[in-house]
Amino acid sequence: MFESAEIGHSIDKATYDAEVPFLREALLDAQNRLREQARFPVLILINGIEGAGKGETIKLLNEWMDPRLIRVDSFDVPSDEELSHPPAWRYWRRMPAKGQTGIFFGNWYSKMLEDRVHGRIRKVDLELAISRAQRLERMLCDEGVLIFKFWFHLSKERMLQRLASLKDDPLHSWRISPLDWQQSKTYDRFVRYGELILRRSSRNFAPWYVIEGADERYRSLIAGRLLLDGLNAALAAQSGPTVAPHTAPVEADMSLNRISLLGSLDLSQKLDKEAYKQQLADEQARLSQLLRDRRLRKRGVLALFEGHDAAGKGSAIRRITGALDPRLYRTVQVAAPSEDERAKPWLWRFWRDVPARGQFTIFDRSWYGRVLVERVEGFCTPDEWLRAYNEINDFEEQLVDAGVVVVKFWLSIDKETQLERFRERENTPHKRFKITEEDWRNREKWDDYSNAVTDMVDRTSTEIAPWTLVEANDKRFARIKVLRTLNDALEAAVAKD
Amino acid sequence: MFESAEIGHSIDKATYDAEVPFLREALLDAQNRLREQARFPVLILINGIEGAGKGETIKLLNEWMDPRLIRVDSFDVPSDEELSHPPAWRYWRRMPAKGQTGIFFGNWYSKMLEDRVHGRIRKVDLELAISRAQRLERMLCDEGVLIFKFWFHLSKERMLQRLASLKDDPLHSWRISPLDWQQSKTYDRFVRYGELILRRSSRNFAPWYVIEGADERYRSLIAGRLLLDGLNAALAAQSGPTVAPHTAPVEADMSLNRISLLGSLDLSQKLDKEAYKQQLADEQARLSQLLRDRRLRKRGVLALFEGHDAAGKGSAIRRITGALDPRLYRTVQVAAPSEDERAKPWLWRFWRDVPARGQFTIFDRSWYGRVLVERVEGFCTPDEWLRAYNEINDFEEQLVDAGVVVVKFWLSIDKETQLERFRERENTPHKRFKITEEDWRNREKWDDYSNAVTDMVDRTSTEIAPWTLVEANDKRFARIKVLRTLNDALEAAVAKD
Repeated sequence: MFESAEIGHSIDKATYDAEVPFLREALLDAQNRLREQARFPVLILINGIEGAGKGETIKLLNEWMDPRLIRVDSFDVPSDEELSHPPAWRYWRRMPAKGQTGIFFGNWYSKMLEDRVHGRIRKVDLELAISRAQRLERMLCDEGVLIFKFWFHLSKERMLQRLASLKDDPLHSWRISPLDWQQSKTYDRFVRYGELILRRSSRNFAPWYVIEGADERYRSLIAGRLLLDGLNAALAAQSGPTVAPHTAPVEADMSLNRISLLGSLDLSQKLDKEAYKQQLADEQARLSQLLRDRRLRKRGVLALFEGHDAAGKGSAIRRITGALDPRLYRTVQVAAPSEDERAKPWLWRFWRDVPARGQFTIFDRSWYGRVLVERVEGFCTPDEWLRAYNEINDFEEQLVDAGVVVVKFWLSIDKETQLERFRERENTPHKRFKITEEDWRNREKWDDYSNAVTDMVDRTSTEIAPWTLVEANDKRFARIKVLRTLNDALEAAVAKD
Repeated sequence: MFESAEIGHSIDKATYDAEVPFLREALLDAQNRLREQARFPVLILINGIEGAGKGETIKLLNEWMDPRLIRVDSFDVPSDEELSHPPAWRYWRRMPAKGQTGIFFGNWYSKMLEDRVHGRIRKVDLELAISRAQRLERMLCDEGVLIFKFWFHLSKERMLQRLASLKDDPLHSWRISPLDWQQSKTYDRFVRYGELILRRSSRNFAPWYVIEGADERYRSLIAGRLLLDGLNAALAAQSGPTVAPHTAPVEADMSLNRISLLGSLDLSQKLDKEAYKQQLADEQARLSQLLRDRRLRKRGVLALFEGHDAAGKGSAIRRITGALDPRLYRTVQVAAPSEDERAKPWLWRFWRDVPARGQFTIFDRSWYGRVLVERVEGFCTPDEWLRAYNEINDFEEQLVDAGVVVVKFWLSIDKETQLERFRERENTPHKRFKITEEDWRNREKWDDYSNAVTDMVDRTSTEIAPWTLVEANDKRFARIKVLRTLNDALEAAVAKD
């Protein structure tokens, strides 16, 4: 979930200076309309890695907006009075009124996360705390509160760099609290449980937004834009409480924020023929052996493939199956749902094909169609694809809990490579069937698909079922990366048992 | 939550025979429209006490309705195939299609409940299982599935009677499974954890219906009527997936089912003046002593009063406060919310007045206004009062978790007594201010209020914060019952610490 917040986003000073005046004016305007309409309160939760700019961003938002309409509360050590009441009381007393904005810096999530990181509560207690938070937020949303949840992120490397650079600068050293230092050691725990929190509590009615915090200009602009777009959408909505406001931010800010995840891939990676042959033989042998391992019989294995049209999904799958006894695997081709399938809840047809213990199932396209083609082509409503992220995470969590090894591949090519391959298909008689009008039409929506892929990875690449982005301009490189990733995952699962 | 399912509901044969033909025809008709529209599937979950008629009701529904459009699945011991898949797989494979009805006899709730009753899982695991079930049901509802959750209930006495009578009858003895016998011993655990399940998982989009199972005619007719009303409401709804279908069942079947909870109270209970004086002095002394107990300083105490107009709330409260140092308590009068209060989520104003540790707060009317006056007078939408039951249960759970002793009183009088008291107020100069036009208007909606009270008790009388229904035709009797109940609750809390 943090992939696209670790790729080193930054914004240059010129762009920033050009953007900020418009953003500030628009935010002030939105704030005024919020006050005038007084239809709903706004609640902003600030969480994330220490040193990722949480405090600075709050300070900046206060500068940019009308501070009389914003109240910032830091929920740190509770007061005596707070301690003598139920835990939620301190949040309720600071609840913003309609037309106003409350920023909760430190909140129920930071409390539960820190308690877990420091081992004060068990994992089940964390899960229960997340459920309680969900019930609270569901109720607040039902009551019309517009909730923004921001997670400011730093990769471990940047976190350590940041701590090092701060240490050297006496002027800034006050920033380094003992907690900071602990976090640099407990970063992994913080991120692991943070991811669990985000996975469970990023609901369509109150999603999380992960913001890379390394570059001050980038994080400020993104936070401001997300807030602005969410506010504007909610102010424009006719009805009262609705999940709709949060449709906008997900689609917003493509220009600044989003495309770069796929753009950050190094598609020039190649493998020469000799190396490929050798590695293919090695990895295929390894796969065959792993799948026969007795320890895997207690587990199912599920590999799924998504990717750009003509990215080479089929041929990558054939390099997997080519090495295997047909009784060892099953391939599921996923196309548009049939009438019978549409008569059931949408995940039904995928549940049907879930591998049993000891089975290996390969999905050529998958349930991710919901948040890719169905989203982009409008085959489902925004509400449907927005909630699909959770539904998918819940689904995959059930698979993993039952011992299934889940491996997910996105095969990525650039636009030029796709064009070449389309042309080649058209010019090669035995490949002509593989290229249709639809492929050309999809191509026109390249950017929409790229955005959908970024959202998909941001929201469904989890610790238990991560996405592997495969640089597939070079087919040989892609096939080996797929096989190796699969083998590594199987090996890790076998080693765990 | 089981109060109104333990008062011995029954329906005589003549009424039953007269009702059934209409019910069957209407059910068949609804089923046909369901098939024709094919807009949504129907899922019926059957749970409850062994021997309360679960199996018989399913059999009957199959007789009454078109069995080709119903599929009954008993999820008992899982098959090898089911065991080799994630736990939810067995339910997904039996998911009904649009236009069809699936009855799950034995389901995720029976599994988690039995696991807990038999000590195979911890309480936290049960809580997590409930959360998972909630996520599943939320998703199914979002996908348009209309879910009915029936809990067939027997009081412990009836359960034991039933087991005894079956034992004596060799023809029926096959019915008594080892599990039955265990349940007669583990009834308390079954009901305690069952209540936790109902409290957490009775959501507006998929509420539980508790049906008293002792009388065959009663339970059959009620189950059929709830199903019919829910189906008809969903079939009539214009839009697709919506929470609205479940508004109807809650309000339905008043005639057969609902009024009897308040009707079952013995309002003729009286206390003569001498006994009253003595007991009042005793209980007031006891209260004063309990409130000074050091062990209570760690706890807050919250007593709330609801009741019919002129039932004597005020005078009952004065019998509590009369014995106390004013520093020992605080009274909160709840009226219509102010403009400032309406600018926050509705529970906000009650959170504000929650007692801190060591404090005793008395609410004269309370948050239950949401599901009483606001519901009956239309001051909030059905969606709002339907979800309020959960919001209230979540709220009170937080109070109890924080150590607050929560005591809830409904003061009940009959219509004639109210009339007498209204007239008396009108005729007594110093009481005239207590009677308004509004009181007379409310009186016209007597039955609506009675229904709302029954729903309220059914849905919010929980193990941790039970309702006490106070027979208040005789004011002396009522005052003593209130004081004694409060003292007993405080004593129990003190004893626990």
